[in-house]
Amino acid sequence: MPKIVTFGEVLLRLSTPNFQKIEQATSFNATFGGTEMNVGASLVKFGFEAAHVTAFPNNLMGQKAKAFLRFLGVDDSHVVLEGDRVGVFFLETGAVMRASQIVYDRADSAFANINPEHFDWEKILEGADWFHWCGITPAISEGAAKACLDAVKTAKKLGITVSSDIYYRSNLWKYGKTPQEILPELASYSDIILASRKNIEEIFGLQVTVEKGKFVEACKMLMEAYPTVKKVIDSDRIQVSASHNQYAAKMWNGEELLETGYQDITHIVDRIGTGDAFLGGFIYGQVILKDDLKSLQFGTAAAALKHTIEGDQNLVTVPEVEAVMSGDKSGRLRR
Amino acid sequence: MPKIVTFGEVLLRLSTPNFQKIEQATSFNATFGGTEMNVGASLVKFGFEAAHVTAFPNNLMGQKAKAFLRFLGVDDSHVVLEGDRVGVFFLETGAVMRASQIVYDRADSAFANINPEHFDWEKILEGADWFHWCGITPAISEGAAKACLDAVKTAKKLGITVSSDIYYRSNLWKYGKTPQEILPELASYSDIILASRKNIEEIFGLQVTVEKGKFVEACKMLMEAYPTVKKVIDSDRIQVSASHNQYAAKMWNGEELLETGYQDITHIVDRIGTGDAFLGGFIYGQVILKDDLKSLQFGTAAAALKHTIEGDQNLVTVPEVEAVMSGDKSGRLRR
Amino acid sequence: MPKIVTFGEVLLRLSTPNFQKIEQATSFNATFGGTEMNVGASLVKFGFEAAHVTAFPNNLMGQKAKAFLRFLGVDDSHVVLEGDRVGVFFLETGAVMRASQIVYDRADSAFANINPEHFDWEKILEGADWFHWCGITPAISEGAAKACLDAVKTAKKLGITVSSDIYYRSNLWKYGKTPQEILPELASYSDIILASRKNIEEIFGLQVTVEKGKFVEACKMLMEAYPTVKKVIDSDRIQVSASHNQYAAKMWNGEELLETGYQDITHIVDRIGTGDAFLGGFIYGQVILKDDLKSLQFGTAAAALKHTIEGDQNLVTVPEVEAVMSGDKSGRLRR
Amino acid sequence: MPKIVTFGEVLLRLSTPNFQKIEQATSFNATFGGTEMNVGASLVKFGFEAAHVTAFPNNLMGQKAKAFLRFLGVDDSHVVLEGDRVGVFFLETGAVMRASQIVYDRADSAFANINPEHFDWEKILEGADWFHWCGITPAISEGAAKACLDAVKTAKKLGITVSSDIYYRSNLWKYGKTPQEILPELASYSDIILASRKNIEEIFGLQVTVEKGKFVEACKMLMEAYPTVKKVIDSDRIQVSASHNQYAAKMWNGEELLETGYQDITHIVDRIGTGDAFLGGFIYGQVILKDDLKSLQFGTAAAALKHTIEGDQNLVTVPEVEAVMSGDKSGRLRR
Amino acid sequence: MPKIVTFGEVLLRLSTPNFQKIEQATSFNATFGGTEMNVGASLVKFGFEAAHVTAFPNNLMGQKAKAFLRFLGVDDSHVVLEGDRVGVFFLETGAVMRASQIVYDRADSAFANINPEHFDWEKILEGADWFHWCGITPAISEGAAKACLDAVKTAKKLGITVSSDIYYRSNLWKYGKTPQEILPELASYSDIILASRKNIEEIFGLQVTVEKGKFVEACKMLMEAYPTVKKVIDSDRIQVSASHNQYAAKMWNGEELLETGYQDITHIVDRIGTGDAFLGGFIYGQVILKDDLKSLQFGTAAAALKHTIEGDQNLVTVPEVEAVMSGDKSGRLRR
Amino acid sequence: MPKIVTFGEVLLRLSTPNFQKIEQATSFNATFGGTEMNVGASLVKFGFEAAHVTAFPNNLMGQKAKAFLRFLGVDDSHVVLEGDRVGVFFLETGAVMRASQIVYDRADSAFANINPEHFDWEKILEGADWFHWCGITPAISEGAAKACLDAVKTAKKLGITVSSDIYYRSNLWKYGKTPQEILPELASYSDIILASRKNIEEIFGLQVTVEKGKFVEACKMLMEAYPTVKKVIDSDRIQVSASHNQYAAKMWNGEELLETGYQDITHIVDRIGTGDAFLGGFIYGQVILKDDLKSLQFGTAAAALKHTIEGDQNLVTVPEVEAVMSGDKSGRLRR
Repeated sequence: MPKIVTFGEVLLRLSTPNFQKIEQATSFNATFGGTEMNVGASLVKFGFEAAHVTAFPNNLMGQKAKAFLRFLGVDDSHVVLEGDRVGVFFLETGAVMRASQIVYDRADSAFANINPEHFDWEKILEGADWFHWCGITPAISEGAAKACLDAVKTAKKLGITVSSDIYYRSNLWKYGKTPQEILPELASYSDIILASRKNIEEIFGLQVTVEKGKFVEACKMLMEAYPTVKKVIDSDRIQVSASHNQYAAKMWNGEELLETGYQDITHIVDRIGTGDAFLGGFIYGQVILKDDLKSLQFGTAAAALKHTIEGDQNLVTVPEVEAVMSGDKSGRLRR
Repeated sequence: MPKIVTFGEVLLRLSTPNFQKIEQATSFNATFGGTEMNVGASLVKFGFEAAHVTAFPNNLMGQKAKAFLRFLGVDDSHVVLEGDRVGVFFLETGAVMRASQIVYDRADSAFANINPEHFDWEKILEGADWFHWCGITPAISEGAAKACLDAVKTAKKLGITVSSDIYYRSNLWKYGKTPQEILPELASYSDIILASRKNIEEIFGLQVTVEKGKFVEACKMLMEAYPTVKKVIDSDRIQVSASHNQYAAKMWNGEELLETGYQDITHIVDRIGTGDAFLGGFIYGQVILKDDLKSLQFGTAAAALKHTIEGDQNLVTVPEVEAVMSGDKSGRLRR
Repeated sequence: MPKIVTFGEVLLRLSTPNFQKIEQATSFNATFGGTEMNVGASLVKFGFEAAHVTAFPNNLMGQKAKAFLRFLGVDDSHVVLEGDRVGVFFLETGAVMRASQIVYDRADSAFANINPEHFDWEKILEGADWFHWCGITPAISEGAAKACLDAVKTAKKLGITVSSDIYYRSNLWKYGKTPQEILPELASYSDIILASRKNIEEIFGLQVTVEKGKFVEACKMLMEAYPTVKKVIDSDRIQVSASHNQYAAKMWNGEELLETGYQDITHIVDRIGTGDAFLGGFIYGQVILKDDLKSLQFGTAAAALKHTIEGDQNLVTVPEVEAVMSGDKSGRLRR
Repeated sequence: MPKIVTFGEVLLRLSTPNFQKIEQATSFNATFGGTEMNVGASLVKFGFEAAHVTAFPNNLMGQKAKAFLRFLGVDDSHVVLEGDRVGVFFLETGAVMRASQIVYDRADSAFANINPEHFDWEKILEGADWFHWCGITPAISEGAAKACLDAVKTAKKLGITVSSDIYYRSNLWKYGKTPQEILPELASYSDIILASRKNIEEIFGLQVTVEKGKFVEACKMLMEAYPTVKKVIDSDRIQVSASHNQYAAKMWNGEELLETGYQDITHIVDRIGTGDAFLGGFIYGQVILKDDLKSLQFGTAAAALKHTIEGDQNLVTVPEVEAVMSGDKSGRLRR
Repeated sequence: MPKIVTFGEVLLRLSTPNFQKIEQATSFNATFGGTEMNVGASLVKFGFEAAHVTAFPNNLMGQKAKAFLRFLGVDDSHVVLEGDRVGVFFLETGAVMRASQIVYDRADSAFANINPEHFDWEKILEGADWFHWCGITPAISEGAAKACLDAVKTAKKLGITVSSDIYYRSNLWKYGKTPQEILPELASYSDIILASRKNIEEIFGLQVTVEKGKFVEACKMLMEAYPTVKKVIDSDRIQVSASHNQYAAKMWNGEELLETGYQDITHIVDRIGTGDAFLGGFIYGQVILKDDLKSLQFGTAAAALKHTIEGDQNLVTVPEVEAVMSGDKSGRLRR
Repeated sequence: MPKIVTFGEVLLRLSTPNFQKIEQATSFNATFGGTEMNVGASLVKFGFEAAHVTAFPNNLMGQKAKAFLRFLGVDDSHVVLEGDRVGVFFLETGAVMRASQIVYDRADSAFANINPEHFDWEKILEGADWFHWCGITPAISEGAAKACLDAVKTAKKLGITVSSDIYYRSNLWKYGKTPQEILPELASYSDIILASRKNIEEIFGLQVTVEKGKFVEACKMLMEAYPTVKKVIDSDRIQVSASHNQYAAKMWNGEELLETGYQDITHIVDRIGTGDAFLGGFIYGQVILKDDLKSLQFGTAAAALKHTIEGDQNLVTVPEVEAVMSGDKSGRLRR
């Protein structure tokens, strides 16, 4: 069994049932989500081992979060129990032209206050094949950024493949550093980067000058600057409405531009975590299918399926993804 | 803050969950609805003050109804506590080609038995900018019709804008009067009337004779007969199915025919109250945007959004409507 | 009131709420389903009398199943109370390209172990106009097959119309007999058969040789071999996705091929039991409308409506079906 | 199987979940209740046949009520479908010292407006062993009182045992008659009367003058005045709190005063319908056990068990009652 | 109508349904609670006007909290919309010997960061008869303490009665001040203080030396030190178990020690907010009944009733309290 | 961390919500239970490692069961995925004198059909400190009995403490063996046996002849016959009602009879699994507290707490048990 290790915050997700507005809700559905953990959870369903590294307070809510990781089959033995609170997000699920809205309440979480000294990455990463992190993590606090850097350095040293989801929300990054100061060094230890052209330009200070083929141009410049990076991937979402999205992905692997067709998701159940589902599928493709185009296709099929599942994690198995990947989108009843 | 006063019945709404047939339901979702109150509730979310005038019995159900008004931010201080029961409607929510069905159980409600003497309209309307009523109200009972007439007369006297939703259900009107006997006088105190050409012809005894431009012709005749009426508006719903509607609106403002495009609502959550949501948006447009076309556009965007919200009331805010009005129907997740 | 008698297993249906994966569910919605009983239940809503013949254990679960039959208006007085368990199926409801999945747990149910001696078919069928069975029943056990044969023979003797849903799942049939050994004799007592061309070929050992008009050719061969069979019907489902199906039907009545247009079901609520709903509608058409094409049209309209209702049974009434059959698919709110 | 026929109104029961106050509830649990129907439903669980005679409107709510009767195993074939509405009661479930509260909304129900001409009692009562009615029925309307009188007269003529629950709520009786004008004649056709001494005095104009043995004295006077009456029974509830009641019963059978001990119900789930459960158990005792004291004991054991079941009806079986009756109140888990 | 103004934090309350442990819960019931606001909400049900002063972030959660205040009938017009988050507490409801547990997550809430300059107390308190605060408020932050001091000074100046719930949790008070530095000055503006002897000793540095009558002695010393204080009250809870409490109260009013008997709450539904319910009832007694003993009795009856209601607020009315106060604890069904 | 290994069947538990009768339920709460697994789950909460050995079918239901084990923190890596079904039990939760009822549907489960060859006990038990099994396991099938014997033999060989819950249900044991043929050999490898005197007599063919001290006498005879057995324990439940139990335990440890007082559980939430909770607590006492009386006391406190928790497993932690054990049964709110 291949093994992935992921690192990042896990938030309590409190969502309104039945498309209710937050104002109407008299109860919230409660689960947990976290972009990196979601990737690992996907891979567990695909037959991988996964361990997630994070921090929770040592109280009833922290124990609940740990139990959720175990439920997903994600190894919780490297979770540090310290700090005061689990970060929270409230989700109001939209429909048609009404957008879903998230209210974050994550400041001062246990993860934000982690002490990078508490992680023995050599031990944590022992036996792992893959390490994955996301740009939200170093945005949260200096400690998280430091721990992330320690992790990628160690992974590199141990010969573990590193994938980086270079995504940043400008409204995080409140501890005095900019993405431009932090992300490039982290990226320099990466094998695979998920980033849009815009992200590449803004974060790495690169400027695309061509008129056509901008994404490829950006990827080339990035790979030149950071020779460890072997592949750059990006997903593309067409938002017809909150209930109807289309999803595709592409990759520059240093040699050619690979692109998938669009998956058409006409009746969305839950859109949160679909990007993570893509990455889970993509990593499966890299490790098991060992083919770049198939990796993208497996990823987009997985992402499409995630739109039909409540919660942050993709709970489908390989045969379900393969069916969609092979073009069977009929949803025919299986008995 | 502009202020609107509305007058009309509020019913207990008991709807089946998850598209259940009434026969299947072992519980009902319970909320309240009333066409005029819904208009006021919309406007509260848009920053208006709103007061609703109605009657409830002074029992646990009446108190519940009052608390619901307050929850919506609607002033309940002019609610009369007398009478025996809150009217009820049972809602079986349909899907695709299966129609939603409503079973009304509203006879002899507290509102139907109101005594028009109990309303001091001068005091109630003090400080108001707008008064709104609907043709259902005078259909319910002689007392309700009388109170409604008192209200519009007083509003007119105080210089308050009066909007009238001239909509009537032929199966109401059981107290011995016809719509033709009652509605024209009420309409004569109106500034703005919501009515279809068919309604205009049937209620006011006017007969359109042109082949083209029938709506405009009807409006002109109406305005000639009732010179206080300055604008006639009408909405247009294309019912693709119970799950998919399209919604547009038009206005004759005495000078030109204004028409919006169609909002396409492809995955309806709850269709009840969408006409009221249109009116709420329209009134916002009249008072705040002060532009007739924008009023219609704001109204149709608001109506479209209401289709995605459970319950009778539109709970969206101005920025949500503005996004849709400006053409952004992507429902893109807001963080 | 016309009367139908049906015979077959009734299973406890445990489905996940809100499109949950089985792994996520902390509760299951509980109802009962059974293909033949579903047909009878449809017809009760259309004004028929219906009795269902089956077996349940004499325990709390068997009593619950009986009460459910009564709730549907299906006569439970011929239910045998013996055996150990009610068969179960777990339903994970899919969406878009994610298929619904059923986990059957029906082995050794009370029905599978029925003793054919326990049914006095002369008495059971007294006063009935129609008898219906399905190919799943004789697949379950030798006893069930024997009882089914007794039933159709008696029905034939009493001049009762027999309809047979010749549908078989190859993964049943575990008691030592093949469909080919059992189904033809059963079919030989049928007036109307529901079967695809493929089923006809596989079960009856007939081989269509024409290039075009294969279904008609198969029907002709079948009718030649089994002269009691007067009509062969088949439904046709286009599976756009798990959320969107299209449904049509056709019939060879010995003289002409009749075909309906497609019903387009764009937002599926529950797809289980839709074929049974078709049959219920079709039988209504045969008995009441006495017109083959209208029977198919009434059946497909009924089947379409069933897709919008949770549970195995179609709970719509004749006016609801007639509206759809007449082309009104607007789902316009009925007050 | 012995057969009971009951006559009376059936109301939609809308209760708040989890001890919520009505003001808090965002949903109501929905079931149906009616004192006479509850008696019949109890007896179905004890192996009787039962038919209930009432009226429902011919709409979705009336159909729902009929289906509920069938679910209970109560024959609904004598239900008249006419009138406008199903009566409703809202139930706020109390606890400890907080009383449960009921808001009735039953005026002008289908039952209140029944036409006594619509009931062919000779046919309805054919084959019945027992007829039961309650004092609420003749309180509702002149028509209901008339139909009730027709029923008891016919029952008497046919030699059917008649039991009468002489219970009246003074706040009903709004149609111009007093209980004193109506109930005595109805009682005169009864074999068994359930009434307190106070009821006997108030309704029949009898006045107990002894200091001790008042109940017996009242019974004697009643039986002298109405010689058809053979037994008078009464229940006795000690209300420790809304969560804790004690329940006993007594009978004067013309010869001796029989009294049961108190059943102690320490954790009440639902107190509504417990008196009806007593009567169901009592009638079982009269018909099957044929012993007056055992009838009272079976009745009180049944009533005690009903306090532990949600809804208006007692759903326990004979063995469950017998266990309690025999003194086993341990509630020991049955596997 | 008398009017009360309250000041303090309002927290989102997320509780597990059906006695679940937090680890088990897949949803949380969502409501709001705050000790001072709860007092005001009680009084609204008793016919008072109430306004609550607090701060919420101007986001969907803050708007939800405001709507909840309005639902309760509490004036939300003095709520300041600023800051980042609504404080949260998670409630795991215990039973029998298993304690309920609360996980607080309230650091850095909008209320904790309030700016005392933002409150114009002269205006807020205009027309008020009573002002109430609790010792938690000044424990939260310097700003909250300052605002609280401004409030009581202004109230004193305006002749408004001030009640102070001198209760402190030692694990709050993290901003550098001790209760001993802050609470005495606040108390000095109070008319009525709720405090135990232990609190009086610890907070005010007073030391009781008598063996008997310690509470009275402590009260006397307190009143001597703070002559504005006219009455000191304390409640007394006997915790038989998490499901069974007994509740009493006492007062030293400068002249005599008044004590109530114990209310026995044998089947607790929700124990949170019962102390606030006592205070609400007590204040009602002071203002309306104008009798000290009756105030305590009304308060304990109200507190007892609150134990039977889910959520933080007492939703009972005066007649319900009066019944319990007069000794009727039967919980007899009210129709 | 000490480590326990347990072996036995895990059943899907489908229970009715809110004390509903099975007949009423329209949904079931779904969780899993199994007596041995429950013991391990308790110990996880007390800080142990636990692994459970069982068999599930390799389908969605088997995967769900595995995920539930992980959620509990129980190692699922020795679960064999083979066989056809997960056994089921339906639970109707009683109250007061109404007994809870269980309908088992466990025949032919994956566990019943396990192949003892599939377990490598040397490997499974590596590093374990304790092995626990229950008498239900060898009752299910010959394979289960064989695997159980292999397990205890290996445990004995490896010096692992073996505890045996010698409890048998006579209505299991359908595969041709009697408890008397199987259980004694299994018991002979045990260190600790949980059994009543009656069980000892019936299973081991021992006959107590003394009048007093029967339990001790039985234990002495058992230990003489099976010298490996060092301690015999038994629990004692007084069933006041389904809502109120009392629970105590005793032990003969070869030297003295130790007995605890009774825990009084006055408001039971869920009684299932409380015996397993006792054993979990007892084993904690043996391993950690290393004191026989304290083991019994910790066990009974744990069992008492389990009665307040929904589901089969005890989810309390050591401090919660210690509080009850030390006599604090107040259930005082913890903040």
